[in-house]
Amino acid sequence: MEAVAKPSLDDIRAAAERLAGKAHRTPVLTSRTLDERVGAQVLLKCENFQRIGAFKFRGAYNALSRLSAEQLTHGVCAYSSGNHAQAVALSAALLGCKATILMPEDAPESKVEAVLGYDAQVIRFDRYTADRTALAGELAVQRGFSIIPPYDHPDIIAGQGTATLEFLEDAGAVDVMLVPMGGGGLMAGSAIAATSLYPGTAMIGVEPEAGNDHQQSFAAGERVSVPVPHTIADGLAVSTPGEITFAINQKLVAGTITVTDDEIRAAMRFLFDRMKIVVEPSGAVGVAALLTGRMPLPGKRIGVLVSGGNVSADRFCALLG
Amino acid sequence: MEAVAKPSLDDIRAAAERLAGKAHRTPVLTSRTLDERVGAQVLLKCENFQRIGAFKFRGAYNALSRLSAEQLTHGVCAYSSGNHAQAVALSAALLGCKATILMPEDAPESKVEAVLGYDAQVIRFDRYTADRTALAGELAVQRGFSIIPPYDHPDIIAGQGTATLEFLEDAGAVDVMLVPMGGGGLMAGSAIAATSLYPGTAMIGVEPEAGNDHQQSFAAGERVSVPVPHTIADGLAVSTPGEITFAINQKLVAGTITVTDDEIRAAMRFLFDRMKIVVEPSGAVGVAALLTGRMPLPGKRIGVLVSGGNVSADRFCALLG
Repeated sequence: MEAVAKPSLDDIRAAAERLAGKAHRTPVLTSRTLDERVGAQVLLKCENFQRIGAFKFRGAYNALSRLSAEQLTHGVCAYSSGNHAQAVALSAALLGCKATILMPEDAPESKVEAVLGYDAQVIRFDRYTADRTALAGELAVQRGFSIIPPYDHPDIIAGQGTATLEFLEDAGAVDVMLVPMGGGGLMAGSAIAATSLYPGTAMIGVEPEAGNDHQQSFAAGERVSVPVPHTIADGLAVSTPGEITFAINQKLVAGTITVTDDEIRAAMRFLFDRMKIVVEPSGAVGVAALLTGRMPLPGKRIGVLVSGGNVSADRFCALLG
Repeated sequence: MEAVAKPSLDDIRAAAERLAGKAHRTPVLTSRTLDERVGAQVLLKCENFQRIGAFKFRGAYNALSRLSAEQLTHGVCAYSSGNHAQAVALSAALLGCKATILMPEDAPESKVEAVLGYDAQVIRFDRYTADRTALAGELAVQRGFSIIPPYDHPDIIAGQGTATLEFLEDAGAVDVMLVPMGGGGLMAGSAIAATSLYPGTAMIGVEPEAGNDHQQSFAAGERVSVPVPHTIADGLAVSTPGEITFAINQKLVAGTITVTDDEIRAAMRFLFDRMKIVVEPSGAVGVAALLTGRMPLPGKRIGVLVSGGNVSADRFCALLG
């Protein structure tokens, strides 16, 4: 294993200072019905109420804040069709910097419009013929852009870790912390924050059944690639763990659990009907895992990272219909 | 006009003390997008996060708390197919008192189950042949039940007023306060709280276009009845203002505005897509009024009472489909 730069709790605290007054301090919600169903005390850290509707703003803003004035003058670049695109676009707008977002030609118009709404430039590419990493690399060289990666970077990880830092400050220690795993950035930041502050915290990663690359990688002791996952949890449809994130998560994560798309749908419905909140599929996996009852945690105090709420009413109804 | 017992700000404060630790102190949410769309600063008091999913818990619990030990021993009775039914059932359960709820035979099973879930007894009646008021009166006489009315009672009004008292404590003074009007209980309590604390507050009632009984009654200077309104805002489908509530609102309400069902749908969609919260049709009328742009309030500070979130995912999708 290569040596990689891992952020510390102090890096997460420094990120929290940068984010103060920029990111929302999102609420921790509870539900008597959920506690009864699970037989435990469940605390939801609701990043669906974060700016741009997801935790991704934390990492992106932290990473952009660490760039030099010269780098900011040249602008930044990201490739994403999801929440990271909006996160970079808004962060750039707040820092007075130009952002260029590479988005696939078949990305939903609503997502493209959201990015354009933050005055970012959008470059479309054909996801079947173009290599987006190479494309971003070319732009970086030709135009001097700084590339803002979606998860595999210490500043991104430190930024994402602020969600769990805040949660533990507001809610106190928990026995178990459930965190969705896509590229592993949110978990890496969360695990550093939680296990530094409360070493006894059991960090449990939640993945869609179709995309259990972390589960397989932990079992193999090395990063394993799975076929591009077909799941409604689009934010978690990642084929392989990040390099830096895996080095961190391999040490700090106690275990993983997977959920099916139907279990995710049931959790979205529960969160809508009983808690009156809108959660996107990727954000609902933690609650989905609890509602399955496959992970009995009687009497425990459980933190759940609800990572985002970017599902339109139309898509929500199509998914649940 | 008869003399009626009107609650004072002190009565609302006393209700707030009774509710402390029982009702949730619901959050005040804001949205940059909403502010931009409206051209004003908008603050939403989110009673969709209240216990039983609506403000109705406040009035019911306050009214039940004012009963004597003997009255509580005999039990309480309410007629409602909506949020008031759950509010009385839960309040009774918390106070160790028996509740009997009269519900129409065609009330949705989900609502009946919610009431049964609080260990209340449900008596079904045929809404086309039975007089629910007479039926409740008979039960009150035969079994010694105390009837808990849905809005036209000083203790109910004082309880509902705690929502606006809390809002003003948390958010400070506003220029305008938008409040849904069904029977007028929420508005009466809100208007007493707001105009006592900040006499300059303009209280604006919001009604469905099909059920503008308050608008017509204010114009006529007396309580007017309209045909049973056909609107998706079922909580506001009331034909005539309450007697006590009208006596209060006639003096304290600055004006009314009506919204169509399509405008309510658009507001529900906005609240879902942009604010990630679930709001029932009756609860969305204030935001609907603002989004129409028919009530230009440039630069004003506007409070909106979002009264409830009891719309199931299935009904939400059917309404928006």
